[in-house]
Amino acid sequence: MIRPVKRLAVLGSTGSIGRQTLEVVRALPEQFRLVGLAAGKNLDLLAEQVNEFKPQLVGYADAESRRQLENRVDIKCDFLAVEELACHHDVDLVVVAASGKAGLAPLLAAVRAGKTIALANKESLVMAGDIITREAQRYEAKILPVDSEHSAIWQCLNGENQAASRIILTASGGPFRRFSPERLEKVTVAEALRHPSWRMGKKVTIDSATLMNKGLEVIEAHWLFDMPFEKIDVVVHPQSIIHSMVEFADGLLKAQLSYPDMRLPIQYALSYPDRLPNPALPRVDWSGLKSLDFEAPDPGRFPCLRLAIEAGKWGGTYPAALCAADEVAVELFLEEHVRFIDIPYFIEKVIEQHEAIINPSLEEILAADAWAREAITDMVKGEKRCY
Amino acid sequence: MIRPVKRLAVLGSTGSIGRQTLEVVRALPEQFRLVGLAAGKNLDLLAEQVNEFKPQLVGYADAESRRQLENRVDIKCDFLAVEELACHHDVDLVVVAASGKAGLAPLLAAVRAGKTIALANKESLVMAGDIITREAQRYEAKILPVDSEHSAIWQCLNGENQAASRIILTASGGPFRRFSPERLEKVTVAEALRHPSWRMGKKVTIDSATLMNKGLEVIEAHWLFDMPFEKIDVVVHPQSIIHSMVEFADGLLKAQLSYPDMRLPIQYALSYPDRLPNPALPRVDWSGLKSLDFEAPDPGRFPCLRLAIEAGKWGGTYPAALCAADEVAVELFLEEHVRFIDIPYFIEKVIEQHEAIINPSLEEILAADAWAREAITDMVKGEKRCY
Repeated sequence: MIRPVKRLAVLGSTGSIGRQTLEVVRALPEQFRLVGLAAGKNLDLLAEQVNEFKPQLVGYADAESRRQLENRVDIKCDFLAVEELACHHDVDLVVVAASGKAGLAPLLAAVRAGKTIALANKESLVMAGDIITREAQRYEAKILPVDSEHSAIWQCLNGENQAASRIILTASGGPFRRFSPERLEKVTVAEALRHPSWRMGKKVTIDSATLMNKGLEVIEAHWLFDMPFEKIDVVVHPQSIIHSMVEFADGLLKAQLSYPDMRLPIQYALSYPDRLPNPALPRVDWSGLKSLDFEAPDPGRFPCLRLAIEAGKWGGTYPAALCAADEVAVELFLEEHVRFIDIPYFIEKVIEQHEAIINPSLEEILAADAWAREAITDMVKGEKRCY
Repeated sequence: MIRPVKRLAVLGSTGSIGRQTLEVVRALPEQFRLVGLAAGKNLDLLAEQVNEFKPQLVGYADAESRRQLENRVDIKCDFLAVEELACHHDVDLVVVAASGKAGLAPLLAAVRAGKTIALANKESLVMAGDIITREAQRYEAKILPVDSEHSAIWQCLNGENQAASRIILTASGGPFRRFSPERLEKVTVAEALRHPSWRMGKKVTIDSATLMNKGLEVIEAHWLFDMPFEKIDVVVHPQSIIHSMVEFADGLLKAQLSYPDMRLPIQYALSYPDRLPNPALPRVDWSGLKSLDFEAPDPGRFPCLRLAIEAGKWGGTYPAALCAADEVAVELFLEEHVRFIDIPYFIEKVIEQHEAIINPSLEEILAADAWAREAITDMVKGEKRCY
């Protein structure tokens, strides 16, 4: 069966997921056509991508970016705001790859346009999962996960006539899985950016090292699969071959496996329900694989996992405050203003001081986000923790 | 949704799979009703089962068995030949659990009646896979695998819109995985019957120790999933938690996992497409699981794997001759007439001497079976290998 070419818009095309999405499109030009590109940062690279893929639509974040882009782009195309690109009628599938809070507005625009969305931005679901899933139902938008763990769960649920009875999210454990509490105090930025199994952006790499990333994924799984927190387990699996598992009512489990390469779940979300051969992608060589290991995560050394799951359970504006505090804390760590172990320390303080709102509106969520950013910045300054 | 009670007939109810099937039915009386029971051996146990489950139909293998059963059964029921039971109109699902060649005739009867069949007898597919799959297509019979490996593959293919690009069959490796060639010469029957992970009948337990079982499963997978032999890999996985894996066109894999307990795949075949909670069945505890190991099988120490795959590739009556020779060789080993390492030795000699027929009829398959049984018996006598 010949399927028509899918017309894609990639929002956040210059980040790690965005660039890997373009690698997939480059390898499968008969299947996918890029009709829209957008990015908030790295306009040089965005202009380069536009000149290579020649999309008809280019999204900009603000007037200044638009001006700069118009100067650098060689081809004729329509410039429009990212939110407009997200719901443009010429787009079949919107890849939301912008990281952090920046993904939220374009995602909501795409949802309200009833689009099919490949979602790589977990922060938006963490902050506003209730609103996004409600709106997706109302506007019949389809959200396809790109995160390797959620892609795995989605693939395992495929063809089943019932929900999962339990989800087991696997975690690599990050580069510091074996570090003592004392050693964790001395972790450098370079060490934290050296992820043992995944090639990812800086923010998510640090989040992986603190296990905050896994905590955010628990919240993401909660919303994507309508799964109570009590039925989502986390298990550390350092090889990152099993990307997650689903347990069913009868006790049988399914798992999805591959080498850790984000292009694999990206391509699956783009090609779903088909699967396409792509010689550029790696295949697991079982003769070279000795063992797949498992251990329980250690909440003592990695408090972010607990902090995130607690915030998820409490709900309201707690997850938004957590997310914002984490975004700032990671930036401060990357700039060497705080230590690695200060990340959970300050996030916990923010959560403790947060006056949460139950069933918040989008405005209240954004207000909680703004409050948490200010609060953590003040705290770090106040404690003079600038190392 | 309330589904009607499924009416089951279990052919081979006194063997290991048969008894475990009855355990599942006992645990889920609202879902399943046993309307038919049959077994060729162990008539005492069959009579006990009939008195407990009170099926309306009882299948017998021959006139003498019928007479004995009539004497031992307390309730009123219809006695009929196993083949008649296999295609009775009151039966929704036929469980073919008879082992070895005994499963072939009832399976074909059920196939030609267009039944849904839970198939635990791999020998019939190995011997006559071509005929069985052709007839199943013609009569629109559905064959649901019960073998844990094939159940795993089936579950992984569920919901996919394309065939597998590769199947990875896992093998426990049996109790002698680490044995030297010298140590293998001295293996006792008691050692061979001590399977490290599975509770199974004697024949399949010995076949697991020689890896013949895995070879037969490769042939079974070839027929069940229409998969070329070149695309079926075997990997040794001693914990028997991953029951098999499927690789798709895009390089992604799915696996099905559970503790090794045959009641799990049996129940899945009975309840398909539903999954039913059954508190009697074990659930994997990830906190207690340290690692899943993998290694390549060693064809030097375990030649049966190679012999079976070769016979499968050559086709014709070769697999039937292999199967028959193996059945006799295992019996002779259990009776301590030949050594463990003589099992592949004699099977290879039988295969070498076999004058195979291409595209055989059922009669020619049964003739090859009879020839191989006689040939191996003569060879063992001729070489005076009675230890």
